[in-house]
Amino acid sequence: MAWKDHVRNVVPYTPGEQPESKNIIKLNTNENPYPPSNAVKQALHDLDTNDLRLYPSPKATDLVKALADYYHVEEDNVFVGVGSDDVIGMAFLTFFNSSKPILFPDISYSFYSVWADLYQIPYERPALDENFKLKKEDYYKENGGIIIPNPNAPTAIYEELANIEDIISHNRDVVVMIDEAYIDFGGKSALSLVSKYDNLLVIQTYSKSRSMAGMRIGYAIGNKELIQYLNAVKNSYNSYTMNAPSIIAGVASLQDKPYFESTVDRVIKTRERVKKQMKEIGFLFTDSLANFLFASHKMIPARELFEELREKNIYVRYFDSARIDNYLRISIGTDEEMDQLLHELKKIVNKRGI
Amino acid sequence: MAWKDHVRNVVPYTPGEQPESKNIIKLNTNENPYPPSNAVKQALHDLDTNDLRLYPSPKATDLVKALADYYHVEEDNVFVGVGSDDVIGMAFLTFFNSSKPILFPDISYSFYSVWADLYQIPYERPALDENFKLKKEDYYKENGGIIIPNPNAPTAIYEELANIEDIISHNRDVVVMIDEAYIDFGGKSALSLVSKYDNLLVIQTYSKSRSMAGMRIGYAIGNKELIQYLNAVKNSYNSYTMNAPSIIAGVASLQDKPYFESTVDRVIKTRERVKKQMKEIGFLFTDSLANFLFASHKMIPARELFEELREKNIYVRYFDSARIDNYLRISIGTDEEMDQLLHELKKIVNKRGI
Repeated sequence: MAWKDHVRNVVPYTPGEQPESKNIIKLNTNENPYPPSNAVKQALHDLDTNDLRLYPSPKATDLVKALADYYHVEEDNVFVGVGSDDVIGMAFLTFFNSSKPILFPDISYSFYSVWADLYQIPYERPALDENFKLKKEDYYKENGGIIIPNPNAPTAIYEELANIEDIISHNRDVVVMIDEAYIDFGGKSALSLVSKYDNLLVIQTYSKSRSMAGMRIGYAIGNKELIQYLNAVKNSYNSYTMNAPSIIAGVASLQDKPYFESTVDRVIKTRERVKKQMKEIGFLFTDSLANFLFASHKMIPARELFEELREKNIYVRYFDSARIDNYLRISIGTDEEMDQLLHELKKIVNKRGI
Repeated sequence: MAWKDHVRNVVPYTPGEQPESKNIIKLNTNENPYPPSNAVKQALHDLDTNDLRLYPSPKATDLVKALADYYHVEEDNVFVGVGSDDVIGMAFLTFFNSSKPILFPDISYSFYSVWADLYQIPYERPALDENFKLKKEDYYKENGGIIIPNPNAPTAIYEELANIEDIISHNRDVVVMIDEAYIDFGGKSALSLVSKYDNLLVIQTYSKSRSMAGMRIGYAIGNKELIQYLNAVKNSYNSYTMNAPSIIAGVASLQDKPYFESTVDRVIKTRERVKKQMKEIGFLFTDSLANFLFASHKMIPARELFEELREKNIYVRYFDSARIDNYLRISIGTDEEMDQLLHELKKIVNKRGI
């Protein structure tokens, strides 16, 4: 017998490429094209590195307080982690501990099945309808828990809060997680339902709307019992997950609401403008309420578009998976970056005489 | 049935207190009393916050490269994580996947049993001898894996590398982890054995000797297959665990070896000096090769010492556990802090007319 016989074998998730070159237009990982607020810059600049010799607050107290204030909840309604991946992974481990399958849409964030495999959680994936919309009745059957991304990725589709609430209320005996990584770009958050449903956990992130993917900050808001369980598991794994710079920068970002709103607004404006222009050259879209487009061309296969853009140093995301293999996921960049994209797309379309 | 029926119930680990007040002499969590190198300060100061909008390198490439150079190994021998707790927790999940019990000493880092409980890994804890030394024969029996801290915590005892190698060579069919959080304070690392044993994983941290507990950086070095498995599980959990400031600061710290050596040296000198002075007032010690003392007084119960020191705003660590409940774990602070400690200890001893 070799030590290899007892290794946990997992199929590793492949994240979007992080090219080292600066000459690339990077529209492949849904990062925000605008930098974080100057308040973040100032806070990191003022960080006293002498304090780094000490462990950070194990509860990330300052950040939890700031988030509680921001969302008008109590501190014990808030859990923070190293990006929303950390928060959701921890929540899977904590709450999806039944022998019944958990449920999530067949097309959704690809990490869900990876976490389920990692923790040996059974799962089923009800199919979205032909327009990639959720069929809420699929979530009425017995299950071990539910996770739904809203807006969904990579489809960019936002589900009305009434549908989300319907699913939560049909599943009071399990934990329902709503993964709202993209909610700030036009959707209505389920946070308003947290006080009503003790089985609801809402997860958000600093990586998209707050332009801080590099800091790794995610958080969950839910009733205090859920948060307590989550903290118990987190403290069993690693008491000090969030480092000192993240706590400080996370607080600072919340203090500059006008900047946050203005960058979100710019991303939305660019999105709508680009949609219109792409439509003119034959693209079709889902109705995106995220910071990316899920686009398909009437004539040109997505894979070809992906490869030709790549040759021009424009990186978008292509998923070689059933049902979505003729779509591109295109993050919204700056106006200049999107103009460059449009320019190249036009050339690709014209070349084919379409 | 309620959602609570399927929650993973764990007994949360209680970390050492992190008091908010600055008037406390904090000798309870084995932090380094000296700040990180100025190279770290400079690197964080030079951080371009505009880049924080982007995800960090999922492999923390720059830091992995710097560690590989520093320890004269290849990049694919190095794994990094959010503190050594993250690294060890991930390694438990990855490698301790057998139905046989894993082994670690009855007195050792208290997180080991917590991780085992979390991941439902069976374990046994062979008892250290009456001097808290390892009995290597205890590790010859069939098992699902082994983890040994060297030096051990909270005993501060260093085991000769020959004993460690003996255990590794008797267990080629399982993964043996050596947790070297305190190795830089006088011990000899098992890193020299990594090329010889493909089942050996050595784990170290920036939190103690590198004065960077607040940054959360840990790493493991082992043969490349071990590292590959660890990366697969890590990427299944969260691709981007280490944030941009940690990568940058971690690299910078390695570049200033003279400063690292001088602070380690200062801690060791203070440790030896304080040991001598505490001996004079009736204290007994294990032979510490760590940045803390494991001390017992001939006449005064540890709990009383702990409480009286606390009243004087000096925090040390007391464990209310079998075999070690008459000991204090005292981190080595600055000379001024230790003088203050000695001063208070003398008063406590004198008050009793000892």
